[in-house]
Amino acid sequence: FLKEPKTCAIVGAPFTYGQPRYGVDNGPEALRDAGLMEALLRLGWRAYEHGDITFESPARGNPRYEGPGSCKHPYVVGEANRQIAEVCEEHAREGRFVLTLGGDHSIGVGTIAGQLLVRPETGVIWVDAHADINTPALSGSGNMHGMPLAFLSRLVAPEEVPGFDWLKRVPALDPSTQLVYIGLRDVDKPERDIIRQHNIKAFTMSHVDKFGIGKVMEMALDHLGERPLHLSYDIDACDPAIAPSTGTAVRGGLTYREAHYVAEAANETHRLASMDLVEVNPTFNGEM
Amino acid sequence: FLKEPKTCAIVGAPFTYGQPRYGVDNGPEALRDAGLMEALLRLGWRAYEHGDITFESPARGNPRYEGPGSCKHPYVVGEANRQIAEVCEEHAREGRFVLTLGGDHSIGVGTIAGQLLVRPETGVIWVDAHADINTPALSGSGNMHGMPLAFLSRLVAPEEVPGFDWLKRVPALDPSTQLVYIGLRDVDKPERDIIRQHNIKAFTMSHVDKFGIGKVMEMALDHLGERPLHLSYDIDACDPAIAPSTGTAVRGGLTYREAHYVAEAANETHRLASMDLVEVNPTFNGEM
Amino acid sequence: FLKEPKTCAIVGAPFTYGQPRYGVDNGPEALRDAGLMEALLRLGWRAYEHGDITFESPARGNPRYEGPGSCKHPYVVGEANRQIAEVCEEHAREGRFVLTLGGDHSIGVGTIAGQLLVRPETGVIWVDAHADINTPALSGSGNMHGMPLAFLSRLVAPEEVPGFDWLKRVPALDPSTQLVYIGLRDVDKPERDIIRQHNIKAFTMSHVDKFGIGKVMEMALDHLGERPLHLSYDIDACDPAIAPSTGTAVRGGLTYREAHYVAEAANETHRLASMDLVEVNPTFNGEM
Ligand SMILES: [Mn+2]
Ligand SMILES: [Mn+2]
Ligand SMILES: [Mn+2]
Ligand SMILES: [Mn+2]
Ligand SMILES: [Mn+2]
Ligand SMILES: [Mn+2]
Repeated sequence: FLKEPKTCAIVGAPFTYGQPRYGVDNGPEALRDAGLMEALLRLGWRAYEHGDITFESPARGNPRYEGPGSCKHPYVVGEANRQIAEVCEEHAREGRFVLTLGGDHSIGVGTIAGQLLVRPETGVIWVDAHADINTPALSGSGNMHGMPLAFLSRLVAPEEVPGFDWLKRVPALDPSTQLVYIGLRDVDKPERDIIRQHNIKAFTMSHVDKFGIGKVMEMALDHLGERPLHLSYDIDACDPAIAPSTGTAVRGGLTYREAHYVAEAANETHRLASMDLVEVNPTFNGEM
Repeated sequence: FLKEPKTCAIVGAPFTYGQPRYGVDNGPEALRDAGLMEALLRLGWRAYEHGDITFESPARGNPRYEGPGSCKHPYVVGEANRQIAEVCEEHAREGRFVLTLGGDHSIGVGTIAGQLLVRPETGVIWVDAHADINTPALSGSGNMHGMPLAFLSRLVAPEEVPGFDWLKRVPALDPSTQLVYIGLRDVDKPERDIIRQHNIKAFTMSHVDKFGIGKVMEMALDHLGERPLHLSYDIDACDPAIAPSTGTAVRGGLTYREAHYVAEAANETHRLASMDLVEVNPTFNGEM
Repeated sequence: FLKEPKTCAIVGAPFTYGQPRYGVDNGPEALRDAGLMEALLRLGWRAYEHGDITFESPARGNPRYEGPGSCKHPYVVGEANRQIAEVCEEHAREGRFVLTLGGDHSIGVGTIAGQLLVRPETGVIWVDAHADINTPALSGSGNMHGMPLAFLSRLVAPEEVPGFDWLKRVPALDPSTQLVYIGLRDVDKPERDIIRQHNIKAFTMSHVDKFGIGKVMEMALDHLGERPLHLSYDIDACDPAIAPSTGTAVRGGLTYREAHYVAEAANETHRLASMDLVEVNPTFNGEM
């Protein structure tokens, strides 16, 4: 489904209102400065640099709409994701690989919506220390970067949350067949219940220890079958020893080698169509 | 065999005369300060804080009785373990999980004796860089934290060592069926002979490299069958990179993730009845 | 094929003209200072300390003969390897284990030639971040430490390169049956083509991640069958976190435990006859 010559669309999504810490909007710049474009060209890809999307900020006087539930800034998050979905859909329809640089993980709603609009059968590999499947009703913090999978899976109805009306026309993700987790190690109790109840395939760090990353990726990819794949990579899946620059680091994560292997194994399916790299926050440098 | 509501007895055993370095008596305090109680409650357990046991010191004028063999302070070590066994037996009879905080690893005689008095069929998972099965006759150093398994397995007769007479009434541990090692990497030649001769199941770090920690724990737990389990965790099993605060650190140990996995896998049997965490010595901080 | 009492010949090969960085000639001294001799004796071996071989330097006025292809210093490299091969052959004929301390990896021509002269069926385990199988025609840098396997496998004809005429009388190495790689992660495109074309068994770091080091070593040793074995260990196979002192460090290498396991597994075959430890350059200390 990718067209030749293989072309990667680079989409900057410096969105930060899905969580409380400043600095994650510098993620796209940091990733570009680290040599992303050169690396792509060296691998024989062409690159379509889309530049950064410009997002609305929370309005003065209405800076932090709370609700439904504990949701913080739902309108701003919803509207940003509408923009992201539109851009990602466009590049996907052109047969380009879509690489979106976050920004916080709330942008996963938009990037995956963009793929689902073009290929509704898309399977999602969610690499993260966290499950990001809280609902507005169950989330303690109200930070919407912990909710994207709840929106995509319709555990919350789009029309009930300001800014998410557009999501109604996007095919829903069936989490029991179209989603696998890799790297979980900090999951809220309500999220654990959701994972069990919906029979979602989840590989925690304990599974990585038990089976090894090779076997875990084999099982994860088997579960998703022959679907086109989207890789949603939260940098906090990696151990803080190798990736300290993120807002919610948790010890016991993927090693440098495992972190690469996950992406390599996904790539070797030849069905990887898109990827997010999110929660890179250069403000944090490992000194707490 | 644990009674509901699940209750963990926390027993402080700040005993230090099984080895020559000061500071290991601060282990219980360091572990409590690190948030042990809060962690237990968060997991839904009740906790019974027993406090620290008070031990005799070597008497003035007779500071370091040597013998039999090279044994240092055998009377003090024996008497301390008598006290520990009594306390641990009591909590085990009440159906509590017994968590003992060392102190040096010589306290393993008492903690395991306490379990054997209640459940003689108990299986022991000994997680350690060292085998701790030297006999007074074979030990080079005479440090009794290197001997607890020799006492429990009756490789030395209790009545021959001052202070250990009480051990006679404790069921012996059959090391070929009731013991497995995890993490060995610094084993004395006489200990290697004992392990071979008694056909003790030992997983060295080389086995962890060969099979992975998942398979190793599976084999270890299989070997112990359906027994109630005691986990004796010497912190020096962990790599010095993650656990420098111990008296006899050895490179090439368990990673942070493996160290947790060992305990998780033991717990998942639902037959774990007790645990020691020993040799935490806050005096050492990784700078040699 | 090793004679009792087991004796290890220690051959210093402080050769540095196979690459551009000074300091790798201090490798033998650094390894001896680290306690090599004591470690050998502790393991029950006898040691025959050969001392360091003295090599020619590039001649004044003809400091850097370039060619054929991009080859730098081919005469000096060839002549040094002639000397090394002579020494290694002699010790091998005496039934000694031959341990050669580099120096850069160009010395692998000589050490392995020495074994092939005595046991032409020798199998080679090449532990390295790099494939070191560039030919003079294909190498970009012309650094001959990247070419030893091309010479041994006759991908280049000895008589075409100054200084290598002596190699004609050495049995050729068949890379498809007599060679396995462990640890590759920085391989040039022409080298990848050679590996594929000659069907060389190569285990990259990605394979180590996929299968684990235990399974990788099992497959590697199976491939070599019942041959006498030579282990050519480039320290840059190890991760820079544990082995920063080398000229061409590459992230994502073997851990401390894996690095040892590789040598342990080779040793457990009881067919290991010789080993090189190369590219230790104390000048580098991890600060770039
Ligand atoms: Mn996330
Ligand atoms: Mn996360
Ligand atoms: Mn111990
Ligand atoms: Mn120990
Ligand atoms: Mn090399
Ligand atoms: Mn190399």
